[in-house]
This record gives sequence, structure tokens and C-alpha cells, in this order.
Amino acid sequence: MINKLVEKIKKTNAPIVVGLDPNLAFIPEHICKKAYEEYGETLEGAAEAIWQFNKGIVDATCDLIPAVKPQIAMYERFGIPGMIAFKKTVDYCKEHDLVVIGDIKRGDIGSTSEAYAVGHLGHVSVGSSSFAGFEEDFATVNPYLGSDGVKPFIDVCRTEKKGIFVLVKTSNPSSGEFQDRLTVCDDGSTKKLYEIVGAQVDAWGSELMGDTYSYVGAVVGATYPEEGRILRDIMPKAYILVPGYGAQGGKGADLTHFFDKDGLGAIVNSSRGIIAAYKNEKYSSFGAQAYADASRAAVLDMIDDISSALK
Amino acid sequence: MINKLVEKIKKTNAPIVVGLDPNLAFIPEHICKKAYEEYGETLEGAAEAIWQFNKGIVDATCDLIPAVKPQIAMYERFGIPGMIAFKKTVDYCKEHDLVVIGDIKRGDIGSTSEAYAVGHLGHVSVGSSSFAGFEEDFATVNPYLGSDGVKPFIDVCRTEKKGIFVLVKTSNPSSGEFQDRLTVCDDGSTKKLYEIVGAQVDAWGSELMGDTYSYVGAVVGATYPEEGRILRDIMPKAYILVPGYGAQGGKGADLTHFFDKDGLGAIVNSSRGIIAAYKNEKYSSFGAQAYADASRAAVLDMIDDISSALK
Repeated sequence: MINKLVEKIKKTNAPIVVGLDPNLAFIPEHICKKAYEEYGETLEGAAEAIWQFNKGIVDATCDLIPAVKPQIAMYERFGIPGMIAFKKTVDYCKEHDLVVIGDIKRGDIGSTSEAYAVGHLGHVSVGSSSFAGFEEDFATVNPYLGSDGVKPFIDVCRTEKKGIFVLVKTSNPSSGEFQDRLTVCDDGSTKKLYEIVGAQVDAWGSELMGDTYSYVGAVVGATYPEEGRILRDIMPKAYILVPGYGAQGGKGADLTHFFDKDGLGAIVNSSRGIIAAYKNEKYSSFGAQAYADASRAAVLDMIDDISSALK
Repeated sequence: MINKLVEKIKKTNAPIVVGLDPNLAFIPEHICKKAYEEYGETLEGAAEAIWQFNKGIVDATCDLIPAVKPQIAMYERFGIPGMIAFKKTVDYCKEHDLVVIGDIKRGDIGSTSEAYAVGHLGHVSVGSSSFAGFEEDFATVNPYLGSDGVKPFIDVCRTEKKGIFVLVKTSNPSSGEFQDRLTVCDDGSTKKLYEIVGAQVDAWGSELMGDTYSYVGAVVGATYPEEGRILRDIMPKAYILVPGYGAQGGKGADLTHFFDKDGLGAIVNSSRGIIAAYKNEKYSSFGAQAYADASRAAVLDMIDDISSALK
């Protein structure tokens, strides 16, 4: 799947991923109204609104982009109906040949991580049959529990030819609270925790290589370009998933260090900046009815911003 | 909810929690057979088997125990039908007045953590109505993203009178890989990362106190008793959720340091040791039909083991 992701990035010439993180506040009134008329102001109604909203964005942008990243929390908050909308969104994106990065940030002790890996990237056995639960192509993974929390994901990736992105340096303001801690190494030198985690991502990744990059990638926030530069060197074979562009403050010019010299090696996510573009003054002329066209325009601008920076 | 948990522990005299982490390999054949006859060897069939299995355990043990801890990964691997079984299990346990600790280990950037908190512990707004998605009483939370990933959970806990347990030192063999890293503090002294996280749990918890303990607890594995002693001192107001008893190797005698002098302050989880007791030689005379009675016997033995250690 890492090979497919790289191919699709080359083909679209767009190292970007659209974050499908729907929020009812982003969804145009006409979509909510229709969903509520059918299902009431209920969890089912909210899930229907999310699903219709996502479909519009995917239809309007799928020819321009290699991948999407649905953030499962935004669905999980609506309980079971929300989870059904998540699954429908994943399936729909795959039907449109998009690579689907499930932003699930799971991570647990070995047998439990295995259950997550199986549920999101693999197949679970029931009697003599086997089934896929959610079926994303990639999942994001939290490393706090160490190797035995991450390796079950890698094992499933090996079988299924899927991949993971391990959280290394996250985009949020307080990510440094633990991730930037200076830690003492065996030889007495000191390194920041994210550097240690990055080195481990490199080691994990060496066990499962695609053609050029590893099936084990990393998450490094656009809001931390200097750390991006350091981590690009520490993890030469890891694809870097870069959240935090746009609404969180990252700009194309900040992102050059995340990429290799050939313009590969990183994929930049934007969520609100794309899916709620029609609410941004710049795209407000589209109006709520044409929200998906506004998203398409925002995707084109984002590709342009990043391409210009990489030149 | 922390007050309710403490009250129930006092009333049952059982500082234990039963981990409802069903695995099809643990479920007696007669239950699987019936579920598959009704739903086929499908995700729905697996979910039905899990649900019937859980009901039996809850019915047989709910008068002895204060709380249960369903591990959501074990349900999530079965996709949507699994998530429905999770929700049914949570609801059933609450109907039986058990405190439900959702072992979800979520954690993300601020707005996303808020969505998880709302979905598992709070209420989400849809139009002019609001709904609970999953409705556990406590959730486990991963701290790797720092304060702005944890505080949205605390905010929801404040409104809803619910609680969290933050991962500090996990029970798995490789937990030390990052959690035990020696880190340099501002004053030049060094501390292990789990001590830094523990101190932060204490600080977060001071913002939201119950009568004696905080709504912000911690996860510290039974497999690390020395670390338990250190963390008990660092986090005097935090209830400690202690996984890793039984199948993972922890014993009652190892656990005294996790508790305060009055026998409160910790709650010990056992999953496989209780729910799959009938597969253990010690309880094999019960047989698969009476698996729930075997679980009851294992609960009584576990209470006895921990009470003896605390005397």
C-alpha cells in the first residue's frame, strides 16, 4: 500500500491528503435539514448528514488527490450511527480508488493492539470464515506502549500489504510536554524523546520495506518544521504524514524540510481548510450549496502552495 | 463517579474490576454454536456470541464486584457488529449498577480528544437535542500528546461527573522502552518519563477532585510493583487502575504498594483470569456449560488473594 500511495502521489502530483473530519458546524444547512427530515435530530440524522457531506467532498476532489484521512473520533462521538458513517466513508473512498488513512491513533498492549490491527487493517476469523471490520489502508498508531504495542500492527501490515503512521511529533501546541523531553541515552548523550521514537520508527520500518519507502511511516506536525527537518534525517525511509497545515497554522513554505529532494517522502493533511472551505472568506462566493466546489478550489490552491514551496 | 467507585469498592470489599475482553477462543462452544445458528459465521454471529458470553459473566459476578472494564479493541475488531456488542455490554453493566471503565486508550489533539470525550463520557448535540454515544463512566486516556490532548477529557468529566485513567506505566513487557527513559528536568535532575507523566496526572487531577480521590486516575501495571510504589507517592490523590494481574503475571502480594494504607486508592483488573476461568485447570471441573460459575469462583479467589495481601 505504501507503493500505491507513492504512485498515486506521483500521478496526481499532489502530496496531500484531505482530512474527512466532519463537524456538524461545517455541514451546510441544506444537508442537515434533509438528513433531519428523514431521520430526525438524532444520532442517525447526524450520521446521515456527515455521510452526505463527505460524499460531496469525495466526488468533487477524488480526481485531484491520492488519499483521504478520516479522523474516527469525529464519527465515534455519534456512537454506533457515527461508526456506520465512518465505515461507509472508508468504503466509498476506496471505491473511488483513494488511499484511506484511518486516523485512529490506537495503541495498546500486544494482544490488544493485534485486535485493533485486525479490525482496521486486517481480517478477523469467525468460525471458518474471515471478515474485514473497517478496512482502511493505513492507520495511525500511538507509540507510548513501546514495541510490543506497535509490532502487532506491523505483523498485520506484512500480511495485508498495508501500512501505519506512528505518532512521533504531533502538531498540537502541548506536544512538547512529553515528546520534547530531553532523555539520557546509553552512551550518556541526550536526545529528545521524539528523536528516540523517530529512531525506533526507522528500526521498525526497516523490517517492512516497500520499493523505496517503508510500510511504517510517521506523523510529524506541520507546526514544527525544525523537528520535521531533524526527523527527516533520522527516518530516511519513513513516509511522513504531516497534519497541521492550514487551520492549525502550517504553511507550504514551512514544509520543505519534511520532503526528500525529489519531492516525495511526505504527505500533507488539511482537514478544515478543505472541507469547510466555503466558510472561509476566500471561497465564500461559492456559497453553502456549492460547498464541494469550494473544497475543490481549496485543494487546487493547496497543491499549488505546496508545489511552489517544493520548487 | 470516582465517589461512586470508591463507595462500591468499600461496599463490596473488592478492589477489583473484571475485564470484559472477550475472545472467541474463550467462548464456550454451546454459545458460539447458538449464535452462529442464528446469525451465521459472520461478524453478527461473533458479536452475538460475545454479547451472550458477557451477559453470563455479568449475571454471575455483578453482586461481588464494583466495576467492569470492557476493552473496546476486542469488540472493534468485529467492525460495526462488534461495536454494537460493546455498547450493549456497557448498557447492560450499567443496568446492573456496575461502574463501567471503557478501556479505550484514546488521546489526540484538543478538538479531537474532545470528540472522543463527548462520544464516550458525554453528550453530543444534534440540532436542539443531545445524545450519549457510548456512555461509559470512566475512560482510559493516552498522554503522549500532552495536556491539550488530556484536558478536553477532564472538561467533559467535570460536566458529566465522570472520570479518566491516564496511562502512566503500562503492564506490557516493552512499556519501559519510552516510559522508563531517564529525562532531564529543568533543575538538571533526572526522572523517568513515567514519573514526569505521573506528576502531570497529579497536577491534572488537582483540578477535579472528588471527596477523597480525583476524577483523574492513572493506569500502572501490576507487573511493575516497584514503579507502583513510586507512583503511589507521586500521585497521592489518583486512583490507580492496575492491569496485568493473573494471566499477565501480577500477583496479590505484588500489589500492596499500589494501595493506600486504608486499602483504597487502587483497583486491580483481571480479564482472562476471570472470564476464561473455566479453561484454567483450577476451575476446569465447572466445565464449559458453567463457565460463568467458574468466573464467579475466580472472582472470589481474586478478592481473597488481594484481601490477604492487603492485611
